[in-house]
Amino acid sequence: MPAPITVVVTGASGFLGQRLVRALLARGTVGGPDGAQAPIGRIVMLDVSAPAGFDDPRIDIQVGDLADEAVVRRAIAHDTASVFHLAAVVSGQAEADFELGMRVNLDAARLLLEACRALGSVPRVMFTSSVAVYGGDLPALVDDRTPLDPQSSYGMQKAVAEMLLNDYARKGFVDGRVARLPTISVRPGRPNAAASSFASGIIREPLNREPAVCPVPPESRLWLLSPRKAIECLVALHDIPAAALGRARKVNLPGVSINVGEMVQTLARVAGPEYADYVRWERNPAIERIVCSWPAAWDVSRATELGLAGDADFAAIVRAYIEDDLHPTPAAAGRA
Amino acid sequence: MPAPITVVVTGASGFLGQRLVRALLARGTVGGPDGAQAPIGRIVMLDVSAPAGFDDPRIDIQVGDLADEAVVRRAIAHDTASVFHLAAVVSGQAEADFELGMRVNLDAARLLLEACRALGSVPRVMFTSSVAVYGGDLPALVDDRTPLDPQSSYGMQKAVAEMLLNDYARKGFVDGRVARLPTISVRPGRPNAAASSFASGIIREPLNREPAVCPVPPESRLWLLSPRKAIECLVALHDIPAAALGRARKVNLPGVSINVGEMVQTLARVAGPEYADYVRWERNPAIERIVCSWPAAWDVSRATELGLAGDADFAAIVRAYIEDDLHPTPAAAGRA
Repeated sequence: MPAPITVVVTGASGFLGQRLVRALLARGTVGGPDGAQAPIGRIVMLDVSAPAGFDDPRIDIQVGDLADEAVVRRAIAHDTASVFHLAAVVSGQAEADFELGMRVNLDAARLLLEACRALGSVPRVMFTSSVAVYGGDLPALVDDRTPLDPQSSYGMQKAVAEMLLNDYARKGFVDGRVARLPTISVRPGRPNAAASSFASGIIREPLNREPAVCPVPPESRLWLLSPRKAIECLVALHDIPAAALGRARKVNLPGVSINVGEMVQTLARVAGPEYADYVRWERNPAIERIVCSWPAAWDVSRATELGLAGDADFAAIVRAYIEDDLHPTPAAAGRA
Repeated sequence: MPAPITVVVTGASGFLGQRLVRALLARGTVGGPDGAQAPIGRIVMLDVSAPAGFDDPRIDIQVGDLADEAVVRRAIAHDTASVFHLAAVVSGQAEADFELGMRVNLDAARLLLEACRALGSVPRVMFTSSVAVYGGDLPALVDDRTPLDPQSSYGMQKAVAEMLLNDYARKGFVDGRVARLPTISVRPGRPNAAASSFASGIIREPLNREPAVCPVPPESRLWLLSPRKAIECLVALHDIPAAALGRARKVNLPGVSINVGEMVQTLARVAGPEYADYVRWERNPAIERIVCSWPAAWDVSRATELGLAGDADFAAIVRAYIEDDLHPTPAAAGRA
């Protein structure tokens, strides 16, 4: 039996972070340095605020600013085997507050890489990146040969973090992996400052019998992944042995391509026709400019080869939200 | 007549920097904020050491570390209209000393962008980038749709600086331009720590009747630009009005594609057959790995559309070195 290992999760109080930590706790193991599954001895949950409801003895909650070197050095201790770096300032906020985005999305990523490099033990480091690294004059289907041309500061910061991670991996400082995430939908909770916040809101708010505004036209096409499948993919990509990845460390995770009109139609079909009436269509040029610069689909062949699976279709995404996050379940939707 | 403007040149004590400053002094004008040529009132020459031989009253020599914010803020004063950012740690050195490369090639670029942004006057900022931003699985002809996949820390740092500049330009913080330079050949002076140093050495050393080592096989293909044409292109790209560039701010400068065996044959043809005997062939895997990851040619149609011209052929490059830098001129070469 391999020795217990320590996993660090940044942005651990966010909704994906909490869900990832719960998944890791439930599994009890994670891919270790030698490739085999190793028991998780400790999970450092690092964020600017403490999460609630994590009383497992393996949990080590650490609160601090990720752009503060001392905070990062404390979190990335000598026994760190793996890091999931989820902390980020979201797209809309990074566009509005340039300094904050640079600090969290770029400086923190670099501090984290430096702390990992300082260990000398070549820890496994997973960065989450985004559709937002793409933009400009895009082909119908983005693939690994599509150049990055971000049209937002968030996308630029993610692209830069990817480049840094890639070079740290090339030099053997870390065992780096980048998971490029589609837009995550349906996020639970309240709207956030992401330009794509509506991609969850137009489903979540109706299901909670609250009004939602859709700021882009019905024909706007998005590339979506449920939180449930996102977590599965992150853990699976983490666990793939370095040799199986080779030098290509950036993996575009699978998504569902659908336009927002069809999203609302799917909601009506899954949950009941009355739910569509909660959506009001009101264009917002600032949001539209960012979100519509992102790819509507990308080639998933590499993800598929690596055994990473997304959602079957958007109905499955709506059902995943209903099952995982909605209380109470609407009568028409059931749990099927 | 427009008011005199201030131009800042970083890396101004380097050979390209000095040559650029002399070219600007000789011209006396440069493209001003309103598009028209404006007289140059002051040229700040910023570098870690002072250049010799610049006694023109327009010259303001400033010595300091470009990764020191105070140095950068002093150089980028309220009247700065244009910045040519040439300072860099070269490829071989950035690969060997990761921290130094990060500090000069990345941190300094960012400090400079921040200082320009703080002016609020949207100065024109020219970054020099490199063939080294490309790498990996390259097409025969690199073009604007080829993704960046640097295989060296130098290339990564240049790619990151490009991304930063691009976003600062998109946000209207600076009027940014990136000139991606082919390998510069023939550089005068002594060998340096660039992995591509030999691309000058195998011509320069023989012409100075000194031995040279070529660390890559004769069939290795390079993409070359003379210092003379590089300076012409930098000034010309600087002077193009922002509206004529649009959003595509990265321009691949024209080059000559030739293998190193043909380079030495050209030397023999231009200067005399005896000069080829000074070259010894001795492979160096570390240099070969970096240099042979670079593109051997790229599409020059955008540069051509913008009126940027390179060298006619490699014989022209050899002759440019003989005319501009070699003393004394070898008898066989003349000045034709």
